[in-house]
Amino acid sequence: MSIPVAILGPTGYTGLELLELLAQHPGMHAAYLASARPEPFSILREFPRLAGRLSPRTPEMCRPIDHDAIAGACRLAFLCLPHEAAMTHAPQLLSRGVKVVDLSAAYRLKDASIYHAAYGHHHTDAENLAHAVYGLPELYRERIAGATLVANPGCYPTASALAVAPFLRAGLIKGDSIIINAASGASGAGREAKPHLTIVEAGDNFSAYGHGSHRHQPEIEQTLAASSVARLSEAGPAADRSTPSVLFLPHLLPIERGILTTITAELTDPTPHTTTTAAAQHALKSAYATEPFITIRDDTPTLRDVQKTNSVHINARVTNPAFARSGTGAHPRLVVVAAIDNLVKGASGQAIQNANLMLGLEEGAGLR
Amino acid sequence: MSIPVAILGPTGYTGLELLELLAQHPGMHAAYLASARPEPFSILREFPRLAGRLSPRTPEMCRPIDHDAIAGACRLAFLCLPHEAAMTHAPQLLSRGVKVVDLSAAYRLKDASIYHAAYGHHHTDAENLAHAVYGLPELYRERIAGATLVANPGCYPTASALAVAPFLRAGLIKGDSIIINAASGASGAGREAKPHLTIVEAGDNFSAYGHGSHRHQPEIEQTLAASSVARLSEAGPAADRSTPSVLFLPHLLPIERGILTTITAELTDPTPHTTTTAAAQHALKSAYATEPFITIRDDTPTLRDVQKTNSVHINARVTNPAFARSGTGAHPRLVVVAAIDNLVKGASGQAIQNANLMLGLEEGAGLR
Amino acid sequence: MSIPVAILGPTGYTGLELLELLAQHPGMHAAYLASARPEPFSILREFPRLAGRLSPRTPEMCRPIDHDAIAGACRLAFLCLPHEAAMTHAPQLLSRGVKVVDLSAAYRLKDASIYHAAYGHHHTDAENLAHAVYGLPELYRERIAGATLVANPGCYPTASALAVAPFLRAGLIKGDSIIINAASGASGAGREAKPHLTIVEAGDNFSAYGHGSHRHQPEIEQTLAASSVARLSEAGPAADRSTPSVLFLPHLLPIERGILTTITAELTDPTPHTTTTAAAQHALKSAYATEPFITIRDDTPTLRDVQKTNSVHINARVTNPAFARSGTGAHPRLVVVAAIDNLVKGASGQAIQNANLMLGLEEGAGLR
Amino acid sequence: MSIPVAILGPTGYTGLELLELLAQHPGMHAAYLASARPEPFSILREFPRLAGRLSPRTPEMCRPIDHDAIAGACRLAFLCLPHEAAMTHAPQLLSRGVKVVDLSAAYRLKDASIYHAAYGHHHTDAENLAHAVYGLPELYRERIAGATLVANPGCYPTASALAVAPFLRAGLIKGDSIIINAASGASGAGREAKPHLTIVEAGDNFSAYGHGSHRHQPEIEQTLAASSVARLSEAGPAADRSTPSVLFLPHLLPIERGILTTITAELTDPTPHTTTTAAAQHALKSAYATEPFITIRDDTPTLRDVQKTNSVHINARVTNPAFARSGTGAHPRLVVVAAIDNLVKGASGQAIQNANLMLGLEEGAGLR
Repeated sequence: MSIPVAILGPTGYTGLELLELLAQHPGMHAAYLASARPEPFSILREFPRLAGRLSPRTPEMCRPIDHDAIAGACRLAFLCLPHEAAMTHAPQLLSRGVKVVDLSAAYRLKDASIYHAAYGHHHTDAENLAHAVYGLPELYRERIAGATLVANPGCYPTASALAVAPFLRAGLIKGDSIIINAASGASGAGREAKPHLTIVEAGDNFSAYGHGSHRHQPEIEQTLAASSVARLSEAGPAADRSTPSVLFLPHLLPIERGILTTITAELTDPTPHTTTTAAAQHALKSAYATEPFITIRDDTPTLRDVQKTNSVHINARVTNPAFARSGTGAHPRLVVVAAIDNLVKGASGQAIQNANLMLGLEEGAGLR
Repeated sequence: MSIPVAILGPTGYTGLELLELLAQHPGMHAAYLASARPEPFSILREFPRLAGRLSPRTPEMCRPIDHDAIAGACRLAFLCLPHEAAMTHAPQLLSRGVKVVDLSAAYRLKDASIYHAAYGHHHTDAENLAHAVYGLPELYRERIAGATLVANPGCYPTASALAVAPFLRAGLIKGDSIIINAASGASGAGREAKPHLTIVEAGDNFSAYGHGSHRHQPEIEQTLAASSVARLSEAGPAADRSTPSVLFLPHLLPIERGILTTITAELTDPTPHTTTTAAAQHALKSAYATEPFITIRDDTPTLRDVQKTNSVHINARVTNPAFARSGTGAHPRLVVVAAIDNLVKGASGQAIQNANLMLGLEEGAGLR
Repeated sequence: MSIPVAILGPTGYTGLELLELLAQHPGMHAAYLASARPEPFSILREFPRLAGRLSPRTPEMCRPIDHDAIAGACRLAFLCLPHEAAMTHAPQLLSRGVKVVDLSAAYRLKDASIYHAAYGHHHTDAENLAHAVYGLPELYRERIAGATLVANPGCYPTASALAVAPFLRAGLIKGDSIIINAASGASGAGREAKPHLTIVEAGDNFSAYGHGSHRHQPEIEQTLAASSVARLSEAGPAADRSTPSVLFLPHLLPIERGILTTITAELTDPTPHTTTTAAAQHALKSAYATEPFITIRDDTPTLRDVQKTNSVHINARVTNPAFARSGTGAHPRLVVVAAIDNLVKGASGQAIQNANLMLGLEEGAGLR
Repeated sequence: MSIPVAILGPTGYTGLELLELLAQHPGMHAAYLASARPEPFSILREFPRLAGRLSPRTPEMCRPIDHDAIAGACRLAFLCLPHEAAMTHAPQLLSRGVKVVDLSAAYRLKDASIYHAAYGHHHTDAENLAHAVYGLPELYRERIAGATLVANPGCYPTASALAVAPFLRAGLIKGDSIIINAASGASGAGREAKPHLTIVEAGDNFSAYGHGSHRHQPEIEQTLAASSVARLSEAGPAADRSTPSVLFLPHLLPIERGILTTITAELTDPTPHTTTTAAAQHALKSAYATEPFITIRDDTPTLRDVQKTNSVHINARVTNPAFARSGTGAHPRLVVVAAIDNLVKGASGQAIQNANLMLGLEEGAGLR
């Protein structure tokens, strides 16, 4: 028995990835495709490459968004829509009993004023924002399983938060020293053709953008604050109560897929040899010992290791301040490198992982 | 009148780049090609692409290294050899009155014990190391003009030191807080075919390597220490006397050419709004106002902007700690982004810039 | 119930692809890994990216080749070995009752003298060559189902023969006029690091190689001759009895995966408007109406459409000799464009398709 | 003394390439930049990468097109405009005594009816079309030197005609058998962002387009017809008088620059061993013995060999019909491979080569 689900917005990169992933899913299938276009259209005509790669239960036609029809046909909907459209359609679907995994940013930030500061428009669905669950299964598995609305995390926040959270929980790093250098393939910028994204301009190139002002920065901080609080509740009243602050520095890679984050932080105990690479790796391995999609690597991961998979590969090391150095003033730092596929674990794969939990299916079904 | 020079090691990427750049040089030409191979060979037969692109005064044949013959034919030699070979041949050429621009690392680090720690073998030419000048014209122009032996800087150190030095000199940043994230095209790894450098493995990929233990880290620190000392001599006895320490985090890009460095540092005065982006840009613009190869950009540079040129493009900004943030603990940081072509300004172009100075030619001759 | 199979040579690109594909297979799993190395080694240590991506039934250790052990554990073996090694191990496995899918070229060419001319060494297993079946399921499905030894086709021959065979069978093109321009991703050259395959040399590049002397040319001709004979048996004694001859012109693309063939041929009836694009497309559609992995496209396919899939996308058109032309002498030609993934349908995917047939499984199991 | 010239349309890829090439030119400089935009704008603000890379005599501001102002300031104008705009502005400039090198297709095709068939709009400047000279210096050097209006050839026609013309002139190949497979970098499609040209869609991809209906096909045929006529005038009345017809099959490469053409043709005398590879190479070498920008290669050229240069690299061979073949019906064919940079020899470099001839400068000035 396969559960019917809907995809709203199947023509963007996250929607297309969902279509292909769901075609391999043993317990869920895309039973309804809907978009903001006023007329129905054939998804196969627009994307001939999908020929033979869709589930036989998936309709060829993508229809206008009809909440009643979706509710009649599907138990869950994936929203691959602009943020504002998500805030319009999610309430309609939820009120009709359809569970929602929202791949936009609409329900990710719990504080609507921060949402406004980051996205430039007001949040219009406070009611559902209040109960939306942030869909990072490795941190919030149980809450996701009971949720009706899951905010699927951003791609950079997924790669960043999973790499840093164990160190905050373990109290190994200073919360105000976290610097996240990240590089992403161009599919993260969406399917729209923009001048700086042509192969001539973006190929053979590498560039920085949005340094210190990217909308994923507050999302990362929100997740890390929760990890920090978890630490505090264990640590007692004497602990450092500062909220983690992050400097997020994204870059654009001349490739389609993948995010690599290189994260540095100061150690809580900077005495050389107190916190070692072995201790850092142990913190990761114990945090993620039973996670099916997380691999702690002894070497540093590369994008090729995770492309087209739902895997997260992470490696941590503590730098040696004595390396080829005669001067004073150096101290060890933690360096964490994490790699994911931005369209899979960073978007559509994680959305399926969340949907599996929400629908009572095996968490890894349809993923690899 | 064109000055004859020699290239020792013309078959690696830096040697080939020199060959092509010198073919356009109005005042200097490659008059002697020599390599470690025991037999002469035709450079055109090995690199058919050079057909029609060499100076007519450049011989087709590359010969075994003969110090007397080189001294008889050339006033200056570019060494594109392994570090140890450079230490063998530089003394021989210098003693015969041939000026040397060494593109290896042999004469870059002033402290032979640090050289040993970084490169794993002992330095064998203390005599010439003592008077070798570090060939970063924007910092040491006058000394280079009077030098007989110039140590051409590494690619990463060029992009890093030029981006950071003005801030240390101006006392704007803390010397022990500098973190350099860098990404380089694969030509920086040399011409030898290695398994991780094939197009299948390195294409579409991005990876970290040598984090905290790369041999360019002490080279960067040495240059920044000198900038810091320059600051101290102006600042008087009360200044912070810590030696700058750097955390250097290189990455491999899936392209041929270019280095982008993204550098963060803590501000000496972290009070928000004291050190502004305008002040940071001003520090760069005043430091490099008359430099022909440095452009201070108001936006962030990309690799495409500098590939195949001797240009350095730099942008600095101070992050806004209030961006979409409700918590505590955030403070502004300096972020500098710099871009160069690793084979031109990071190697062979800078070598020509140095040779121009050493030979009394116009500094930018043959470059763009 | 899952059938245990062996992979001999899992560390090359076809072996690694098999490992990943079999991890998703519902009815077959890699139960034995073996290589020519004298000592066992961990496949996960050598390829950390495989962590979490192997079937739980697949051993981590790759062992020396032991025919008895393989026969004891597996019903079928995939040989991803050099041609000569394949001729050594296939007889041993076959004699122990193990079915063999050989991904080398050892058993592809029926005429041992042509094998010698193309590969430069003698064929040493005439006995098994006699009964080996060429593993192109769309042409030889039934014979494959009954075979014990299947010669898995080359990547270029797969893309070429499937694109041309329907036109020879239908008698629409002249057998001595076929010119196959083809371009392949670099994974087709194997995993060994060679100087011309580094990202610096092969990236941003495009080049021709082996024009008119590539070893896949006789393989293509052999398959097309069979198609031509099929035509003759239907056409009766008056038909053109010339054996098809092909000019095969391969090129190297600056990417990992995919083969695009652009094939031209003269029409048997060159009268304009006799053979139309519609007729050409009809010939393809009727030939492959029920094929699960072949899509006849109305537009021209691209590599992106088929990468990481077992699909073959084909489009045919007849050129319009009157286009913007005032002169004489032009005549219409057939142009066929076909796209496959060289590592999937061109190697490991097709090997699984063949194994599925040989083991009585659903032909498309584990593939997409 | 440097000659002032104008660039109309400096913001497209050919205009930008002209700007950079002219910055290195010893005898010509861009003295006037003009575009169709109604307001002046800073070219440096729009393309920060040009900082420090323009000639000091080149104005920063690009102005609306003012024919009188251009005529007052410049002796020659490069038109990098749409075809129709070129037909509007060329007459105005010519009538004011300004020589014109037109990089559009407006004046390439001598027969206005073929122009209409290929480009879909009528030619509106028959007067100047009549005396325009096709700017392929290797074939029409003397006419170009005396011309006031030069039609700069298309990129594909440059790579194709230079590769084939010597064989038609020598009577070695059949004029109706020429098939040109070509692959181009994406800069050939212009600077406009189109959905199929983003790095996500075009990167890692390879595709066919415009097969048999590309507008460069009649342009190639026109040039080859002239070469064929040259042959006829030498050969006398008994020669084959058919006009060459070409099948042109372009493809899109996942890179910025370069065109590789792989051309096949039937030999006039198909007797094996009559026309040999040596004879084919000789035909090229004797045709281009004194050409500064053409290199006849003994191996096959690659795009990397010619990128960023004005060079044309060509190799010819005659295929061996006996290679690994037992059947009948095979015959030898000529295969020619040629490589150029589409933006240099295929556009802006060739435009400068033409302008050099028209202005009495050294033909190769400013080029390499």
